[in-house]
Amino acid sequence: MPYFPAVDKILYEGPQSDSPLAFRHYDANKLILGKPMREHLRMAACYWHNFVWPGSDMFGSGTFQRPWQQPGEAMQVARGKADAAFEFFSKLGIDYYSFHDTDVAPEGASLAEYRNHFAQMVDELERHQEETGIQLLWGTANCFSNPRFAAGAASNPNPEVFAYAAAQVFSAMNATHRLKGSSYVLWGGREGYETLLNTDLKREREQLGRFMRMVVEHKYKIGFTGELFIEPKPQEPTKHQYDYDSATVFGFLHQFGLEKEIKVNIEANHATLAGHSFHHEIATAASLGIFGSIDANRGDPQNGWDTDQFPNSVEELTLVTYEVLKAGGFKGGGYNFDSKVRRQSLDEVDLFHGHVAAMDVLALSLERAAAMVQNDALEQFKAQRYAGWDQSFGRAVLGGDFSLESLAEHAFSHQLNPQAVSGRQEMLEGVVNRFIYP
Amino acid sequence: MPYFPAVDKILYEGPQSDSPLAFRHYDANKLILGKPMREHLRMAACYWHNFVWPGSDMFGSGTFQRPWQQPGEAMQVARGKADAAFEFFSKLGIDYYSFHDTDVAPEGASLAEYRNHFAQMVDELERHQEETGIQLLWGTANCFSNPRFAAGAASNPNPEVFAYAAAQVFSAMNATHRLKGSSYVLWGGREGYETLLNTDLKREREQLGRFMRMVVEHKYKIGFTGELFIEPKPQEPTKHQYDYDSATVFGFLHQFGLEKEIKVNIEANHATLAGHSFHHEIATAASLGIFGSIDANRGDPQNGWDTDQFPNSVEELTLVTYEVLKAGGFKGGGYNFDSKVRRQSLDEVDLFHGHVAAMDVLALSLERAAAMVQNDALEQFKAQRYAGWDQSFGRAVLGGDFSLESLAEHAFSHQLNPQAVSGRQEMLEGVVNRFIYP
Amino acid sequence: MPYFPAVDKILYEGPQSDSPLAFRHYDANKLILGKPMREHLRMAACYWHNFVWPGSDMFGSGTFQRPWQQPGEAMQVARGKADAAFEFFSKLGIDYYSFHDTDVAPEGASLAEYRNHFAQMVDELERHQEETGIQLLWGTANCFSNPRFAAGAASNPNPEVFAYAAAQVFSAMNATHRLKGSSYVLWGGREGYETLLNTDLKREREQLGRFMRMVVEHKYKIGFTGELFIEPKPQEPTKHQYDYDSATVFGFLHQFGLEKEIKVNIEANHATLAGHSFHHEIATAASLGIFGSIDANRGDPQNGWDTDQFPNSVEELTLVTYEVLKAGGFKGGGYNFDSKVRRQSLDEVDLFHGHVAAMDVLALSLERAAAMVQNDALEQFKAQRYAGWDQSFGRAVLGGDFSLESLAEHAFSHQLNPQAVSGRQEMLEGVVNRFIYP
Amino acid sequence: MPYFPAVDKILYEGPQSDSPLAFRHYDANKLILGKPMREHLRMAACYWHNFVWPGSDMFGSGTFQRPWQQPGEAMQVARGKADAAFEFFSKLGIDYYSFHDTDVAPEGASLAEYRNHFAQMVDELERHQEETGIQLLWGTANCFSNPRFAAGAASNPNPEVFAYAAAQVFSAMNATHRLKGSSYVLWGGREGYETLLNTDLKREREQLGRFMRMVVEHKYKIGFTGELFIEPKPQEPTKHQYDYDSATVFGFLHQFGLEKEIKVNIEANHATLAGHSFHHEIATAASLGIFGSIDANRGDPQNGWDTDQFPNSVEELTLVTYEVLKAGGFKGGGYNFDSKVRRQSLDEVDLFHGHVAAMDVLALSLERAAAMVQNDALEQFKAQRYAGWDQSFGRAVLGGDFSLESLAEHAFSHQLNPQAVSGRQEMLEGVVNRFIYP
Repeated sequence: MPYFPAVDKILYEGPQSDSPLAFRHYDANKLILGKPMREHLRMAACYWHNFVWPGSDMFGSGTFQRPWQQPGEAMQVARGKADAAFEFFSKLGIDYYSFHDTDVAPEGASLAEYRNHFAQMVDELERHQEETGIQLLWGTANCFSNPRFAAGAASNPNPEVFAYAAAQVFSAMNATHRLKGSSYVLWGGREGYETLLNTDLKREREQLGRFMRMVVEHKYKIGFTGELFIEPKPQEPTKHQYDYDSATVFGFLHQFGLEKEIKVNIEANHATLAGHSFHHEIATAASLGIFGSIDANRGDPQNGWDTDQFPNSVEELTLVTYEVLKAGGFKGGGYNFDSKVRRQSLDEVDLFHGHVAAMDVLALSLERAAAMVQNDALEQFKAQRYAGWDQSFGRAVLGGDFSLESLAEHAFSHQLNPQAVSGRQEMLEGVVNRFIYP
Repeated sequence: MPYFPAVDKILYEGPQSDSPLAFRHYDANKLILGKPMREHLRMAACYWHNFVWPGSDMFGSGTFQRPWQQPGEAMQVARGKADAAFEFFSKLGIDYYSFHDTDVAPEGASLAEYRNHFAQMVDELERHQEETGIQLLWGTANCFSNPRFAAGAASNPNPEVFAYAAAQVFSAMNATHRLKGSSYVLWGGREGYETLLNTDLKREREQLGRFMRMVVEHKYKIGFTGELFIEPKPQEPTKHQYDYDSATVFGFLHQFGLEKEIKVNIEANHATLAGHSFHHEIATAASLGIFGSIDANRGDPQNGWDTDQFPNSVEELTLVTYEVLKAGGFKGGGYNFDSKVRRQSLDEVDLFHGHVAAMDVLALSLERAAAMVQNDALEQFKAQRYAGWDQSFGRAVLGGDFSLESLAEHAFSHQLNPQAVSGRQEMLEGVVNRFIYP
Repeated sequence: MPYFPAVDKILYEGPQSDSPLAFRHYDANKLILGKPMREHLRMAACYWHNFVWPGSDMFGSGTFQRPWQQPGEAMQVARGKADAAFEFFSKLGIDYYSFHDTDVAPEGASLAEYRNHFAQMVDELERHQEETGIQLLWGTANCFSNPRFAAGAASNPNPEVFAYAAAQVFSAMNATHRLKGSSYVLWGGREGYETLLNTDLKREREQLGRFMRMVVEHKYKIGFTGELFIEPKPQEPTKHQYDYDSATVFGFLHQFGLEKEIKVNIEANHATLAGHSFHHEIATAASLGIFGSIDANRGDPQNGWDTDQFPNSVEELTLVTYEVLKAGGFKGGGYNFDSKVRRQSLDEVDLFHGHVAAMDVLALSLERAAAMVQNDALEQFKAQRYAGWDQSFGRAVLGGDFSLESLAEHAFSHQLNPQAVSGRQEMLEGVVNRFIYP
Repeated sequence: MPYFPAVDKILYEGPQSDSPLAFRHYDANKLILGKPMREHLRMAACYWHNFVWPGSDMFGSGTFQRPWQQPGEAMQVARGKADAAFEFFSKLGIDYYSFHDTDVAPEGASLAEYRNHFAQMVDELERHQEETGIQLLWGTANCFSNPRFAAGAASNPNPEVFAYAAAQVFSAMNATHRLKGSSYVLWGGREGYETLLNTDLKREREQLGRFMRMVVEHKYKIGFTGELFIEPKPQEPTKHQYDYDSATVFGFLHQFGLEKEIKVNIEANHATLAGHSFHHEIATAASLGIFGSIDANRGDPQNGWDTDQFPNSVEELTLVTYEVLKAGGFKGGGYNFDSKVRRQSLDEVDLFHGHVAAMDVLALSLERAAAMVQNDALEQFKAQRYAGWDQSFGRAVLGGDFSLESLAEHAFSHQLNPQAVSGRQEMLEGVVNRFIYP
């Protein structure tokens, strides 16, 4: 018995379609720069917002009455939820999904139950993957919801909590490996502090460094060939999260010698909460060599919390996708919809509305971005703007031929008097719009 | 002829005084934890806000009619400004001052004029220092105001601008060395971007890394024994500044192997613009081993730009000073008042009102913080909270005795089930208030 | 059997006490400006944060294991919760409490059950009030948590939801009247919108206006002599709430002719989320004649959501209490602690820590503010600053003796050339600190 | 001798053009919903950002070397500036312009000089208007830049400053009337406060109320038939501006009985600084009946000050223009580009780049919005969503047939149990994108 009886498989109908349950732009196998859209975008639907969250918020209880969330024996509910999830993924025509350990299996009352439940559900997921062809983009462990993680997981003042988190991450990494996940994500939801008055920043950083090293070693030990990602977020639920943004994560990775081992999974809404544009975070991570994957959503520019709305801006996503293409595209990562329908969007069909519109936004952004790459006006402008650094004097300066003193003396003796030149920002903004609105 | 004829030297009169032109708490030689207040606080007044800025803002012209800002021959004006500055520092009874190269000397029309003017004014400053006993806390170079730096200094697309900045920093470091400055500061005011559309992040970062390395080498070459500081700021005037916050600067320093050579000068108002508490930035820098100095001011919590108001919160500064004391106090750094009177505070006496009140706030904060250190309830609470990490299991985990797998198996086999314990935040907030309001 | 066996009644021990479970400043009957502290402050503890919320947040489940929150027959649980609440209020020595209808009584499965449950619990509360002497500061109705209010209560697109809300507000007003509450509060938690795409702003405003008029009429009908308050908040859970801030509420009240009938209950954390200082909101409401009551808490300046932390700043509360004293003090309102312990503060004793420290902060702020009122340097400064408006020309201008033309001609003919004078902000900030740190 | 010799008149070339100095979408006389684009949009270029501002910011001096800003005799410079301005407007092909009194004429050293200079320049502007056909969208007076306005204009503590402002506004209104301006704008740049410590909110509000009444009376007296607009802004340069946002202005207007006389000129960047979306401010003003005009620009979502960038988002402007069309279109208002090129965009041609791209953005937005109006899916959805209020029960409730008690009794007796329905936000966002990306 289907969970979504009213919805048929979503099909590509083309731009002229006005059906909200058809793709206007996402034509999975259409070649863009020689590669199918689906392989460029590697889009994933997530388990948690769609199949776990009941539509509650801090001021009200759940508005959803999902058939797969009705009370029942825990494992049976988990199996029903998986059935619903894969029916949804299939009808949506999305290639990937993502999950936390505790999304798919009941935690149970002990670690023994946790291990047992999770193992059963991994079998179940494997079966679903085989039957549907849906693949796992990435797995992760939820080390933030259970009260034991109130003061953090790896950064917890109690080493037994660290060990408990290790047990979950060990299990989730192994599951991801077995399910042929492309990558594994670590979001340190409560790796941060509520108040400095009771917090030892130095200790907690050391603990996090140790944990990440163990994770990297385990990857090699089990032969997992996917990528590892840390997901930066500046705050919420914590007052301050240690993985504030890409630049902060880079500093952490560098300190512990992990900058070649772990990359970042950038969430649009986390970028903006950190005071950055989404574009900034992508470009920064790419320039630091740690760009990995994207949690595609958006925040509300006027609200100071993680609203996790579906992306709907082609203008924003075109620039982001342009950066992704310039960085060589996704490897283990992809566009994961860490997005949730609004609490008022309480019908099952709203899950489709959210994803279909967002997949179309990404598809259209890919087309626009590809056009920008093909005729790379921005790149050409930059090459010209920095041309001096590719000439002899610039190369000598950067190459270390000058000391501060000899360079100063060069400036004095040549009476250097360089003048500002136009950065042409408005013209370039117009150029971008020419590509977005051809 | 004095510039401040209406103001006598500010004296300590004690808490019962209600004169706004007397210290109620700052008693320079009073011993706190065995060291005079003045040596703990190392307070400095700055040249730029007090003697250069005319009281203008983006929506209006200068409201001040300072006698030392009247039109005249450039070097004569500069000398008068220095006279006014040292009269002010002396009457205020502050031990240190700080300046940019172009605050003290006219830039002139060429690098030759710049060098000549600056050299003359360094003589002048040296004379003033000798006559008054006022010392230089730190010097710096203004590589952001002149139109040539519109697209940055070291990160400029034009290597000649990089060279020009080198000439200024070379000159300002040498001047600081000669004037026996305690340290040297680099604020990369326009080392950032206005738009990613014309910016090559990777190149600009390499340029900055090269520049900083040259600065460090020059320090050793000239035998300057003071400290070097980068001053983080997230944005303004740029859309995004590369030295966003302490954690970001740490990552940059680590990448270029400079984390032992350069520390941070943390400005309260820059911290809050970056989405952090002032306390956070101090504690973070200290935990990363890069805490250096403080630009003491405050922002307006409702305004999104650098208001550079005088600090007036003992509640905030007590926690900050507590961190400074715990980190061993200032070495080359100090509390520099990078603070300006409001545009409406247009009388010369307002310069005194701002500094006197702020110096009292710091003095009182020092007393409160010292009491907190002596009876270190916070430290004791932390020690107990993290006690598990000092015991055998915790030490083994952190020491690398476990792999992810062996630690997970430990958790599974012991059926670990650690529970959350109270973090006692409210109690600790009450403890802090007991010290602030004894 | 007590719910707080480990805590005795909190007593005043004076500033020298270092017990976190004693008052250092709150001496209930101490006379300040001729009136006991308790009557100035009219402090209330709230039902919801202390006795209903389980310590959950959007990223994790409840950390509290309150004895009064254990599963059981709904009405029996409600009675136990009331026993716990009044034991807490009594031991804390606070004079007032506050509640929502659904905090104290189970909603039940129908309006009939709601009415029945609530009636029984009002009897219970009345008995507790009589036994303990604790009084009701204000009551309110929760028209935002139940899924039926997802799209608002009075502003709902469905008039039956409006009617449902009317039934709750009717019941809660009557209960407040019977329990001799000093006032009644309306917080329109979901009176706002999620997206303009589906919202008719004009309609919803008319609906709210109609609802408020009904509430005012009902007050007179039942002879309730307390005050009515709207509680402004800018957003959360909505994307935008109509009662954004005091100025916005004033405009709404004026449009519907209610500005003499309804005042505002200002929450510190809501003020800051709206981009205002707490002080601003109090002073603005007072200047508009609609100041009513205060929800005393604080937000985290770096976090963009309602953290509802306990107030801990004497610096902030002194200025606020100064405004309250200048406005004539509370009438029906008071300082209601709409504050919650952190999710990690999971012990029952933490509820005491939070309130005791906060009550001391208010008591100390009252003392400081009273001193400011007695020697009113701020008022004197203002009187002098605006003196021109009390003289003949100023009175003529404000009194309407000039048209724009005649006033312009006056300026031209007198060649007016008024100059700016110092606003002395820094000096005044120093004056305030003299009172806070005497 | 032309000021822009390198630029010819900007022409419409159609979407296929890749010239940055041609319109791709703005085809002035193209009919949209039966009216030419130019009449819908009523676009204006402003005098101040383009012809007065030298490219300075708070951290650096001017980067522009405009020929019309070279030193010279004041009135001659003013005439050259007017020549440059009208050459620019003409080559741009924009229909309207806007100015402050002190943009176009030198202030001089006295009110007599001010009057004389301004009168001469109004003659000059009139001549330019006649020669070019360019019209005045609106005029305004700059009562915020001169130091005398440091503490406000109408809200100044000194009534002589109020009178001085009256002289300017009188002059600027008369000039606007003579130049056949469509409307007159009042932006209270410093009508706010820096600190509450020296501010009497109640007095200042009364002063503002009096001033606005004089302005309204003067409009009728001189027979000016255009509209009057207040321009809301929340802060900057003030810490808090009284005209915070549209809802705040509405409350002010209502209190002084001016809500039919004055409307709002909404600036995109001011909306976002106030914590609102641009769309919100437009829709709110329209719903309150006070929508008047638009200052078309954008802010940087990560920067907390007025960046006044050129609008470049068709996604945002389509929704805004949809609201404008639904509200009946502009009457006296229009789209005024209160936008400035970046400080680095230092060439004269950059002024064209900024405007041409922005005019195209507005033109395209108009086309998209018009399509949305023609097939008004949003309106239909709303009509259905609120249908209950158009039926008998809803009409009775809103019409006043029920008291709170009788409505509550209705709910109890009918055992009302209304349920939430989906708000379909995601579907509607998809619908909007269908129109933006057809």
